[in-house]
Amino acid sequence: MPERSDLPVRTIASPPPRGLVAEAVARALAEDLGLAGDITTTAIVPPGAIARATIATRKAGTIAGLDLAREAFAQADPRIAFTKSASDGAAVAAGDGVAFVEGPARGILEGERVALNFLCHLSGIATMTRHFVDAVAGTDAAIVCTRKTTPGLRAFEKYAVTCGGGRNHRFGLFDAVLIKDNHIVAAGGIAPAVRTARENAGHMVRIEVEVTSLAELDEALAAGAHIVMLDNMDTGTMRQAVVRVGGDALTEASGGINLDTVRAIAETGVDLISVGALTHSAPVLDLGLDFD
Amino acid sequence: MPERSDLPVRTIASPPPRGLVAEAVARALAEDLGLAGDITTTAIVPPGAIARATIATRKAGTIAGLDLAREAFAQADPRIAFTKSASDGAAVAAGDGVAFVEGPARGILEGERVALNFLCHLSGIATMTRHFVDAVAGTDAAIVCTRKTTPGLRAFEKYAVTCGGGRNHRFGLFDAVLIKDNHIVAAGGIAPAVRTARENAGHMVRIEVEVTSLAELDEALAAGAHIVMLDNMDTGTMRQAVVRVGGDALTEASGGINLDTVRAIAETGVDLISVGALTHSAPVLDLGLDFD
Amino acid sequence: MPERSDLPVRTIASPPPRGLVAEAVARALAEDLGLAGDITTTAIVPPGAIARATIATRKAGTIAGLDLAREAFAQADPRIAFTKSASDGAAVAAGDGVAFVEGPARGILEGERVALNFLCHLSGIATMTRHFVDAVAGTDAAIVCTRKTTPGLRAFEKYAVTCGGGRNHRFGLFDAVLIKDNHIVAAGGIAPAVRTARENAGHMVRIEVEVTSLAELDEALAAGAHIVMLDNMDTGTMRQAVVRVGGDALTEASGGINLDTVRAIAETGVDLISVGALTHSAPVLDLGLDFD
Amino acid sequence: MPERSDLPVRTIASPPPRGLVAEAVARALAEDLGLAGDITTTAIVPPGAIARATIATRKAGTIAGLDLAREAFAQADPRIAFTKSASDGAAVAAGDGVAFVEGPARGILEGERVALNFLCHLSGIATMTRHFVDAVAGTDAAIVCTRKTTPGLRAFEKYAVTCGGGRNHRFGLFDAVLIKDNHIVAAGGIAPAVRTARENAGHMVRIEVEVTSLAELDEALAAGAHIVMLDNMDTGTMRQAVVRVGGDALTEASGGINLDTVRAIAETGVDLISVGALTHSAPVLDLGLDFD
Amino acid sequence: MPERSDLPVRTIASPPPRGLVAEAVARALAEDLGLAGDITTTAIVPPGAIARATIATRKAGTIAGLDLAREAFAQADPRIAFTKSASDGAAVAAGDGVAFVEGPARGILEGERVALNFLCHLSGIATMTRHFVDAVAGTDAAIVCTRKTTPGLRAFEKYAVTCGGGRNHRFGLFDAVLIKDNHIVAAGGIAPAVRTARENAGHMVRIEVEVTSLAELDEALAAGAHIVMLDNMDTGTMRQAVVRVGGDALTEASGGINLDTVRAIAETGVDLISVGALTHSAPVLDLGLDFD
Amino acid sequence: MPERSDLPVRTIASPPPRGLVAEAVARALAEDLGLAGDITTTAIVPPGAIARATIATRKAGTIAGLDLAREAFAQADPRIAFTKSASDGAAVAAGDGVAFVEGPARGILEGERVALNFLCHLSGIATMTRHFVDAVAGTDAAIVCTRKTTPGLRAFEKYAVTCGGGRNHRFGLFDAVLIKDNHIVAAGGIAPAVRTARENAGHMVRIEVEVTSLAELDEALAAGAHIVMLDNMDTGTMRQAVVRVGGDALTEASGGINLDTVRAIAETGVDLISVGALTHSAPVLDLGLDFD
Repeated sequence: MPERSDLPVRTIASPPPRGLVAEAVARALAEDLGLAGDITTTAIVPPGAIARATIATRKAGTIAGLDLAREAFAQADPRIAFTKSASDGAAVAAGDGVAFVEGPARGILEGERVALNFLCHLSGIATMTRHFVDAVAGTDAAIVCTRKTTPGLRAFEKYAVTCGGGRNHRFGLFDAVLIKDNHIVAAGGIAPAVRTARENAGHMVRIEVEVTSLAELDEALAAGAHIVMLDNMDTGTMRQAVVRVGGDALTEASGGINLDTVRAIAETGVDLISVGALTHSAPVLDLGLDFD
Repeated sequence: MPERSDLPVRTIASPPPRGLVAEAVARALAEDLGLAGDITTTAIVPPGAIARATIATRKAGTIAGLDLAREAFAQADPRIAFTKSASDGAAVAAGDGVAFVEGPARGILEGERVALNFLCHLSGIATMTRHFVDAVAGTDAAIVCTRKTTPGLRAFEKYAVTCGGGRNHRFGLFDAVLIKDNHIVAAGGIAPAVRTARENAGHMVRIEVEVTSLAELDEALAAGAHIVMLDNMDTGTMRQAVVRVGGDALTEASGGINLDTVRAIAETGVDLISVGALTHSAPVLDLGLDFD
Repeated sequence: MPERSDLPVRTIASPPPRGLVAEAVARALAEDLGLAGDITTTAIVPPGAIARATIATRKAGTIAGLDLAREAFAQADPRIAFTKSASDGAAVAAGDGVAFVEGPARGILEGERVALNFLCHLSGIATMTRHFVDAVAGTDAAIVCTRKTTPGLRAFEKYAVTCGGGRNHRFGLFDAVLIKDNHIVAAGGIAPAVRTARENAGHMVRIEVEVTSLAELDEALAAGAHIVMLDNMDTGTMRQAVVRVGGDALTEASGGINLDTVRAIAETGVDLISVGALTHSAPVLDLGLDFD
Repeated sequence: MPERSDLPVRTIASPPPRGLVAEAVARALAEDLGLAGDITTTAIVPPGAIARATIATRKAGTIAGLDLAREAFAQADPRIAFTKSASDGAAVAAGDGVAFVEGPARGILEGERVALNFLCHLSGIATMTRHFVDAVAGTDAAIVCTRKTTPGLRAFEKYAVTCGGGRNHRFGLFDAVLIKDNHIVAAGGIAPAVRTARENAGHMVRIEVEVTSLAELDEALAAGAHIVMLDNMDTGTMRQAVVRVGGDALTEASGGINLDTVRAIAETGVDLISVGALTHSAPVLDLGLDFD
Repeated sequence: MPERSDLPVRTIASPPPRGLVAEAVARALAEDLGLAGDITTTAIVPPGAIARATIATRKAGTIAGLDLAREAFAQADPRIAFTKSASDGAAVAAGDGVAFVEGPARGILEGERVALNFLCHLSGIATMTRHFVDAVAGTDAAIVCTRKTTPGLRAFEKYAVTCGGGRNHRFGLFDAVLIKDNHIVAAGGIAPAVRTARENAGHMVRIEVEVTSLAELDEALAAGAHIVMLDNMDTGTMRQAVVRVGGDALTEASGGINLDTVRAIAETGVDLISVGALTHSAPVLDLGLDFD
Repeated sequence: MPERSDLPVRTIASPPPRGLVAEAVARALAEDLGLAGDITTTAIVPPGAIARATIATRKAGTIAGLDLAREAFAQADPRIAFTKSASDGAAVAAGDGVAFVEGPARGILEGERVALNFLCHLSGIATMTRHFVDAVAGTDAAIVCTRKTTPGLRAFEKYAVTCGGGRNHRFGLFDAVLIKDNHIVAAGGIAPAVRTARENAGHMVRIEVEVTSLAELDEALAAGAHIVMLDNMDTGTMRQAVVRVGGDALTEASGGINLDTVRAIAETGVDLISVGALTHSAPVLDLGLDFD
């Protein structure tokens, strides 16, 4: 079962490329500062004022996005020193400080909201992911994300999932084949769809097929799919599916899975459980910046 | 009480500028297509295939973002026809079709995820906003959003709030003065902070001050604040604050307000209730694309 | 008269956001350097040559834009040291040095024209503004700019106006309501236009209406306009208008005002005098770079 | 005298590349619309309203920039029809219509200011250029512009100069050699500077040298300069210089030339008269948009 | 041997995303047109002139890039009609017409060079690829490209390889794991490197290892590599390697392979032969544009 | 013969503007890193690992592009030190080190391919140019490049040509007039084409005409062309052409010239020999990065 052993046992979060970080932060700052800049701060805070502040959690959770926060302050004013006291992926309690900033007060106030918006959003994703990962602890199932991400933030959200102990599915339409119902209709069936994909996709690319029944599963396996997505199956059928696959492919459970249902699904023996909510519906983890 | 009458009685959602829509959609498509494009669709679906599909809700809610969905398909393939059957701001039931697309199947499949990611995210915001607006129905309070938005999407999220019946607070640091605790410390008190802001901010700009007690409220009113933010006050104090303001300024309740608490807050008589969750923690409204 | 006291008594110029400065300078350098760069300097000046130069005025005036000049040299060659000897907003005599640059001669020559083009243009605006501000000295009128700016440079030109002692009107279509004749026609009159705007614009937004007669003024005041623009009125009518407003709104004189007419207009008692020429027709203040 | 005959006898204005037009207009619209768009128009003007308007001059002058105005309305709303009634380069009287727009009223109002800002600025340059060109009528001198342009707008301003009957000097540091005092110092004299430039610059590139005396002129001619810039010479010396050059190079008068002095300079027989003010200090030509 | 059967038997070239095409063409036109545009054509060719021209080969080869050529003319002037008479991937003889353009002569001349630069470059890659593919005809080996591409053009060059009958290797550092000597050193051997990669890379990602001897090959196979790159092996060793792999992984020959050596390498039984020269050293296929 | 002496006797390569370098490198890194970054390196190489490596040639040639390589590593990780041991334009033997890098191993591995892709491509151009330059050594002919460059890389490729001892022709359509067959047809002959160009092009611009016969040459010379391009002439005719020109214009040989034919062409006495292959068909110079 060589495919089975592909499943990672631990995760090294791969931080997004620097260029993407700089670009996303610049866009967010431009959005917040407009043409006139921070008119409150300019009116009230003297240019020479120096401040020191702590970024701290208001609730317990898992941290992600500290490098985006750092970049926000650096772009607001390069003289601001940013010091982490936690790392991405760390579990934090309510009230924990995760970073300190020190420097020109104007710059700290100008960068604050952008830094927190990134940090709270990504930490929210990491925190929700961690809850799912903990819920399946002791099983062999990995929690994976989907392409249902917030437009413009996919690289960062995929990273936040790994900070929470989850794993990444494909990053886009470009890096893996995922054959869904519409493709199957276009190809005239599962077997020709998989065969066509195998013939045409690059040799470095894996092929996954969505199946909704055991009959479709058999067809996908016979055609040589590398991964089968068990779409909206009940756990009984899912269990049978896992047995029938017998390690010849990876199995992925998918479809409206939540914290109440994920454990039972994991116990069917599936390899992967994909959860769209991780990247499209995670509430923020509340963090704030407090001046010393 | 001229300021009081400023409070709008209805909302016309102002759609984001075309340039921003085109840019955000292009960025999202680039993220999803990478260098290689949709390798599944290219491998399986013939270039000449034509398809027709419906975008429909899976759950009830309020729609926002149809023009972004339209743009996603237009950029994927300009030959795709996109026809709305609902408008932004409309209340929809589970299963309602909101738009139809017809054209080259490849383009529809390539644009699908980006279109849905925008539509589900923004409709999620509109839906949550509508819940808050409904919860305060019959009171004089308006529901407003904050600057706690998803980086890069502020223009669209602010718009989605208005689709849900909410109102926009300032768009950024540039278009209104909001004096918070750190500014007050820097200025040496509420009175000097407001005075300095009045002296320095443009004449088209309004000035809001965050207060945490009735004493601070008095100070802000004496200094001539246009809006006072009643930060994390209990409803009893809030009620007193509203009386004390007596229409000389707008009053805004702020701080961890949720659907359970919003009604009681509205009944204190405040003019505005700001809810960060609208733009930072709204789960998506589930919509899907079904081929005919 | 709370609105009246909004009028600032002094000005703190709010420098444009760093991101905008870097972007505008990069665009200007790209325009001047093309693909081949400075072919004169490369051919003649050795790579290792070091130079020192002074940026000095050729005429008296008011300075604005030193940070853009600094950025031009920094982008041309980060090893160039730029030292200000004057600040934005300073009154300078002909021949005064305003900054010194020292470093690689090639970089100084490559950045020179871009630095001076920004500095001369913005100082020209500051200088003209200062003339208008001086002309109304002792009255209560403030000089304000308009949206008649040079495309792509609005943030910098608005800033230059404040360096000259003027004040900013709205920055764009997005941050204040200004109801003009065409809006009034579309709404069916001044009263419905103001009412519709009050109902629909955000609560942080001020509303100004253009009026051309005392009758229209009365209508605008009754409708609750925050600012009334007295468009092309003679000074007699304007004086009556100011009396009639009686502090219930801000008054703005507008329409072809020049240095010959501005004093008489200010003496009518208007709060604001808007001058399009500040940003669309100010000649440059002549500055040059002299090698030591 | 082959060089002498290079001097053009008439001008075909070369319109700026489409890509630059689209980009500059998009930037200007973004500047004016921000995140929220035209909040006045959205609040008051119904989405379906159709309008027709005329762009007309308020004063006499020369027109330039109609294609930028067209692009502004096209980007604001592609359904707006734009019809020219004059061409770039045309002399217009006060009150002349130069273009008509018809289409959605919202789009016309949103694009109006950007269209006019380009049109007034560029027509101002064309108008001032035409005054200089007319002032030297009957002489052999051509009026040329310099690199003292408004940052970001060089391509358009250079074009506007040709609309006014002027001619373009080099576009940037990249397309011709212009040896100034600092280069001469670096090279150790005029002769070595010209020689080095001839050795190193491409064979398609012309070489101009700035000279301040007849002695320097002789040195430049001996070294083989193609153009000599007579910098701040009095007309007597200039006349001698022209005689001494005798057609072996082009002669350019430069330095603080204005409408009062330009005729006398032209009558010295110089080939070219460069005027920085054309692109750095031309006041706008006033044009407005009137709804029908 | 499920992995073995992954190897495609035919190729469907996946055209690059529209957004990338538009962006690359815009950049190339900007490069060629600068600020002043096509000064030759503007000076000589009347604005109203209409022309018709044929794009034809000067030599035999394989075509790639017609959509980029079409885009170049469309951006130069949207009124130009572009009609293909061949398709990407077609074998053409010297003198064959591949497309016709008809429309404004100025636009055709302005877009010509950019269109041809893309077309000649990409057709050159397709042509060289076709030569390699033909050279291994009848064997089971596929010709694949590498990451040694021209900066900024990878998407198009990868596409051109498929037009020539080749196949794509990974597109970047992001879509597959390729373990090279330096990674092996960092990990402390092949086995730990592969194991670490399997543990950490996503489940949709394939893992390839570079090996230089049969001993290393054994180690890589034991560790579960999906693809083994046989780096600079002689054909004898390669043949042994293929036997030893026995279908448990894909085999890729790599290292300085040219048209003289490729056949013998293919006959060793390797699955894939990677050729960097396809994208870094292919001479252009000569095509020209002839006016009718 | 003033024109003749324009021909440079030596070349100072003018390095591309910093802004272009940073932009091109950022684009190339984005292409290679995608959203996920270097997944191999992140999985295997520890974040703290430090490495030292040498960039060395595999074959003899001429170096160009070291500053682009430096920028690639700087953008990958600013902590990487890059030290040149050769300069652009240097002749190198196989195995020579040209630069050393030292710093975080992850960054070195991430920047490696982009650095090498630029360096190998540009050094390939410099190397081929050097071969042509050497082939005409002792004659008066200069080797020049054309506009047949790789889209997006023209500034760098033009620079690489000068590193190899060649000279640049015009950079684009914007900086010189080159009248070809289609322009001649449009103008109604060589004489009117040249005359029109002289009348309309700027005075800093040179005019070249393509001629295919001695009769056309005479016409071009009579019309006052500055440069004549002798297109696809045999060497006998070319020799006659050179005599006939007699130094009144520069002569350029053009059309399918290769290393076998270039010497004979140079010996006809032409001033310039343009070779499109320099920038469109040069194979890379092989360089690699070896960890110490």
